[in-house]
Amino acid sequence: MIIVMQKGATEPQVEHIVKRIEELGYKAHLSAGEDTTIIGVIGHNAIEVKDSLVHLPGVGQIIPISKPFKLSGREWHPEDSVYKVHGHQVGGGSLIVMAGPCAVESREQLMSTARAVKAAGATYLRGGAFKPRTSPYTFQGMGLHGLKLLEEARAATGLGVVTEVMTPQDVEAVAESADILQVGARNMQNYNLLYEVGQVHKPVLLKRGLSATIQEWLLAAEYILSRGNYQVILCERGIRTFETITRNTLDLNAVPVLRELSHLPIVVDPSHGTGKWSWVQPMACAGVAAGADGLMIEVHPDPDQAYSDGPQSLTFANFEKLMAAVRGVAVAVGRELAV
Amino acid sequence: MIIVMQKGATEPQVEHIVKRIEELGYKAHLSAGEDTTIIGVIGHNAIEVKDSLVHLPGVGQIIPISKPFKLSGREWHPEDSVYKVHGHQVGGGSLIVMAGPCAVESREQLMSTARAVKAAGATYLRGGAFKPRTSPYTFQGMGLHGLKLLEEARAATGLGVVTEVMTPQDVEAVAESADILQVGARNMQNYNLLYEVGQVHKPVLLKRGLSATIQEWLLAAEYILSRGNYQVILCERGIRTFETITRNTLDLNAVPVLRELSHLPIVVDPSHGTGKWSWVQPMACAGVAAGADGLMIEVHPDPDQAYSDGPQSLTFANFEKLMAAVRGVAVAVGRELAV
Amino acid sequence: MIIVMQKGATEPQVEHIVKRIEELGYKAHLSAGEDTTIIGVIGHNAIEVKDSLVHLPGVGQIIPISKPFKLSGREWHPEDSVYKVHGHQVGGGSLIVMAGPCAVESREQLMSTARAVKAAGATYLRGGAFKPRTSPYTFQGMGLHGLKLLEEARAATGLGVVTEVMTPQDVEAVAESADILQVGARNMQNYNLLYEVGQVHKPVLLKRGLSATIQEWLLAAEYILSRGNYQVILCERGIRTFETITRNTLDLNAVPVLRELSHLPIVVDPSHGTGKWSWVQPMACAGVAAGADGLMIEVHPDPDQAYSDGPQSLTFANFEKLMAAVRGVAVAVGRELAV
Amino acid sequence: MIIVMQKGATEPQVEHIVKRIEELGYKAHLSAGEDTTIIGVIGHNAIEVKDSLVHLPGVGQIIPISKPFKLSGREWHPEDSVYKVHGHQVGGGSLIVMAGPCAVESREQLMSTARAVKAAGATYLRGGAFKPRTSPYTFQGMGLHGLKLLEEARAATGLGVVTEVMTPQDVEAVAESADILQVGARNMQNYNLLYEVGQVHKPVLLKRGLSATIQEWLLAAEYILSRGNYQVILCERGIRTFETITRNTLDLNAVPVLRELSHLPIVVDPSHGTGKWSWVQPMACAGVAAGADGLMIEVHPDPDQAYSDGPQSLTFANFEKLMAAVRGVAVAVGRELAV
Repeated sequence: MIIVMQKGATEPQVEHIVKRIEELGYKAHLSAGEDTTIIGVIGHNAIEVKDSLVHLPGVGQIIPISKPFKLSGREWHPEDSVYKVHGHQVGGGSLIVMAGPCAVESREQLMSTARAVKAAGATYLRGGAFKPRTSPYTFQGMGLHGLKLLEEARAATGLGVVTEVMTPQDVEAVAESADILQVGARNMQNYNLLYEVGQVHKPVLLKRGLSATIQEWLLAAEYILSRGNYQVILCERGIRTFETITRNTLDLNAVPVLRELSHLPIVVDPSHGTGKWSWVQPMACAGVAAGADGLMIEVHPDPDQAYSDGPQSLTFANFEKLMAAVRGVAVAVGRELAV
Repeated sequence: MIIVMQKGATEPQVEHIVKRIEELGYKAHLSAGEDTTIIGVIGHNAIEVKDSLVHLPGVGQIIPISKPFKLSGREWHPEDSVYKVHGHQVGGGSLIVMAGPCAVESREQLMSTARAVKAAGATYLRGGAFKPRTSPYTFQGMGLHGLKLLEEARAATGLGVVTEVMTPQDVEAVAESADILQVGARNMQNYNLLYEVGQVHKPVLLKRGLSATIQEWLLAAEYILSRGNYQVILCERGIRTFETITRNTLDLNAVPVLRELSHLPIVVDPSHGTGKWSWVQPMACAGVAAGADGLMIEVHPDPDQAYSDGPQSLTFANFEKLMAAVRGVAVAVGRELAV
Repeated sequence: MIIVMQKGATEPQVEHIVKRIEELGYKAHLSAGEDTTIIGVIGHNAIEVKDSLVHLPGVGQIIPISKPFKLSGREWHPEDSVYKVHGHQVGGGSLIVMAGPCAVESREQLMSTARAVKAAGATYLRGGAFKPRTSPYTFQGMGLHGLKLLEEARAATGLGVVTEVMTPQDVEAVAESADILQVGARNMQNYNLLYEVGQVHKPVLLKRGLSATIQEWLLAAEYILSRGNYQVILCERGIRTFETITRNTLDLNAVPVLRELSHLPIVVDPSHGTGKWSWVQPMACAGVAAGADGLMIEVHPDPDQAYSDGPQSLTFANFEKLMAAVRGVAVAVGRELAV
Repeated sequence: MIIVMQKGATEPQVEHIVKRIEELGYKAHLSAGEDTTIIGVIGHNAIEVKDSLVHLPGVGQIIPISKPFKLSGREWHPEDSVYKVHGHQVGGGSLIVMAGPCAVESREQLMSTARAVKAAGATYLRGGAFKPRTSPYTFQGMGLHGLKLLEEARAATGLGVVTEVMTPQDVEAVAESADILQVGARNMQNYNLLYEVGQVHKPVLLKRGLSATIQEWLLAAEYILSRGNYQVILCERGIRTFETITRNTLDLNAVPVLRELSHLPIVVDPSHGTGKWSWVQPMACAGVAAGADGLMIEVHPDPDQAYSDGPQSLTFANFEKLMAAVRGVAVAVGRELAV
């Protein structure tokens, strides 16, 4: 961390700050320029004490020089993280596809979808048993019964299961049923939940918050990693912008940026990212071209009848078409669909 | 809810939609214009089935015509909601002031602050025992011990206590210690937490999410109200914008807008809303001039030494000045400080 | 346009509104529901008079039912617009590549870049002679002399020239030198400039404003089209979001959305869209996979020495690599590079 | 400007950067920390060459340490700027009120409004002759004839005139008619226009761009100041946020922030800032409480009949009420209405 003093800051001011830095357990390193003095604050995690220094007399600005995320960063783990999850490789050049309905609605709906996405080449089954909804007056999911149906679908098709957990109390139950636990966008900064999923032995799919920056997202991952669960998968699902035609704005820039900053695998969700089924295939192809390690796609036997997210769900036939298109792009950018 | 058909939508398409509306348990009301047909969907909460209709062939757009929030709206409760909380009136023309440190750090810090803000005219003591922090590597609060200190400060000063609860498991404990439970901005859409605080008999201060719209905020309030807890206080604490000089952008427009849409009392937090102590007083005055029912202000005996939010905390002397300025503006707009 | 009356609106209120609609030259079409009356306002461009009606007593909300853009919409022109520009087809399945330096800096810089991008397969040369800069204290471009150098580069390489025009007075001069006139993001709503480029016989590349919605962008295009210049090319160059790691957020969602709403060709600029050279290639590939009709790429002989945009400029070698990668993806999605 | 090298940057990398800095005409000042080397770049306006350095091998980040705006900053001009404009003081403790219709529509409309706002205590008459409109199909203003009517209204009432200029060619004509030239939000970064109004001898009211940061706004002011016109007045008129209930989000935080950073007077426009007449008075009062030097308010003899901005325009009676409320708040914060 660097403190840039104001022009005209006095010597006593500089001394006072140096003293304060030392009280806080850090070392100060002075560098007096022509009209500006710069003080380096040296020691582990110095940025933590920024707030204790920033308004001292004479301080101009304080600049972090190391990134606040550690375990999720390339500096800590230069190689791509690669996990083996329910028979498939996640990260490291392979391409996974998680597909299924927004919410588990019935045995029949789930089973038929699981079979269809399996046949088309999906590697995991997605489906929500617990649903975070903006309004308390809409369908809130099937809960534990939904989890049982997901287990049944796994048994029938062999597909690993991805499902959302919304609150610390449910983590144990969901971790028993699921192969990958999903933390939703609205819970990206639900720290108690992050700690809890940080203590299970299942991978966690961490969705990006609706208006989170990439740094905040990696810091959320840090909560999980710092509790000992190293199997975090990041999922870009669209951010909030001024655009209202799309439901969200799928931010594919995050893919190459994260590839550079972090070793964690990155999955792209063009269903939530766009909000309309006809835009899902082009954005899925774009996600793969940008370098994503996987896709998450909503599929429903009859989108017209879906309890939620019908407009962005693909029919079985459209999911097949998407898989064909995605395969072509994957080959073009040297990536292989996990089988 | 109104369905506007595309130009050139065919009769069979219209019929199909009418049939679907009736299957879903609603009534359809047709109105054929020169080149556009409009279908009214009539029945309770029709907007819930929007997703089942929006992508049917021929549909142009679907427009909600009733507001999605109910219990928080003026239509349901035309008079201002007024609560009596620990001896003071909240809402209905009075002006409350919640003041205190960002986090409870020690008995001494808390006690001296409680006494100072009481002397200057504050009506409640604020202070965090559980702290949501962006990074897992920073101070996370004193927890239960902090709650005990808050109780002690209440006993000593007579000030009611406002403190944050972060997770459903802690609601009972916090509700025992606090007079008002705070739900923080990052938890505005933590639905399990909202349900839980919806079942206690203490008022809830619901902060606006970092990039939440006013409608989403009222829907979050709806989660609490719909569980039977009618004592919700809204707290505007700044939204995220492109501006980086301020920590957040305090959105005072929300005050007159909420006054019109909702009966719930509105408190303004210029400390988080601006992020810098020197901007707190002008924005506190502006909040009162805009019509707020209360203020929430961070005060610390020695902001330089604060574990968190030092830059935006007022010294005791500056809090006194703020109170004097606020009193003047309150009088000018016909509002009275609760005493 | 539809007027939805408030619940409980009175008959005289409805009559007053109908009268007002007729005074304004439109027809009113009433539809009384159980508790809500709806009034259709029928006639050309009814939305224009929205402001005259929205605050009349009893009005709940007013909803536009036709899109405000016309000439740029698919409804007006269902087929893709295709132009022949300096020997290449723009739109309609082909893929164009505009490449070159941010700013024209010298004859040598421009000539060597023009030759390099031509050799690598670019179809047009880009380069700014007039530069809009956030600060008045930075390089503002070579002006007319820059235009002359661009003409020279075209003569030497056969590449058509794309260059920006910033103000109505310069339109004539730029239109003489350039094959495509560029209107920059900051000028997307500079209406006098839009009118002026709407009167020349050269195609206009219209960049999306920094925080413009797609509808506002199409309305800006409408200014040009409505003056008789039908050769508009839209260019997505990144929007402003909360992310600060990237310079802007390239919004590829705009590609499939515009493909659906509009017939105009769409070009993607990953150089400005990301701000860093190492992210340009993946996002260029993603843009093509999403369905773009072209790319705009900044290339510089020595990015370290560039007067502007060095960090996002590709070297000649990196541009060659990008072209190879883009070709692969283009083939995978059935699109052919113009040659 | 400071360059922070990456951890592990090599000595040759550091030397290369130092050499490059010197080539660019600046001095380098090295400071080697334990694991990070920092290079100060010393010389006038060093930030200009940031782009030439940021991607050199070994560079971690580059940090500006002086603010990019100069003439608009408090460092350059510590006292408040105060102008005498058409008989009233602007800035320095007085409070001005600019009121009138959005657009000049007719002699009668303008004259009656001018008389009414004068009687209620306004200090200037506002009214648009040239109107920037999002759609080319809506009313675009009366042009030169509108200017003549404004002159007439000034002659009749003695009120100084504020009116918008949209394009460089019109600056001369508008400057002849107006006492204050307005540059609208959409033109905040129309640099040719800024240069042109920088050369006239009339004050310029510079509105904040729709999603401009405060720094970008001050840099736009810098364009005008740097051409020799020192009479710039800043006008906060609402920024774009995710909120859709309000037309824009009036950012009152900008008032205390600008007061600290800049010496230029600040006017607040709650009409555009909120978009609805019933929210104008509370936000006008809030603006004054926050410390604004003036208000800009839209007033219309019959808002229902207004060609534009009717919903946010006050009737004469409501403007009178607003003035009474504003006077009370002004007294409370020690500010006096100019008379």
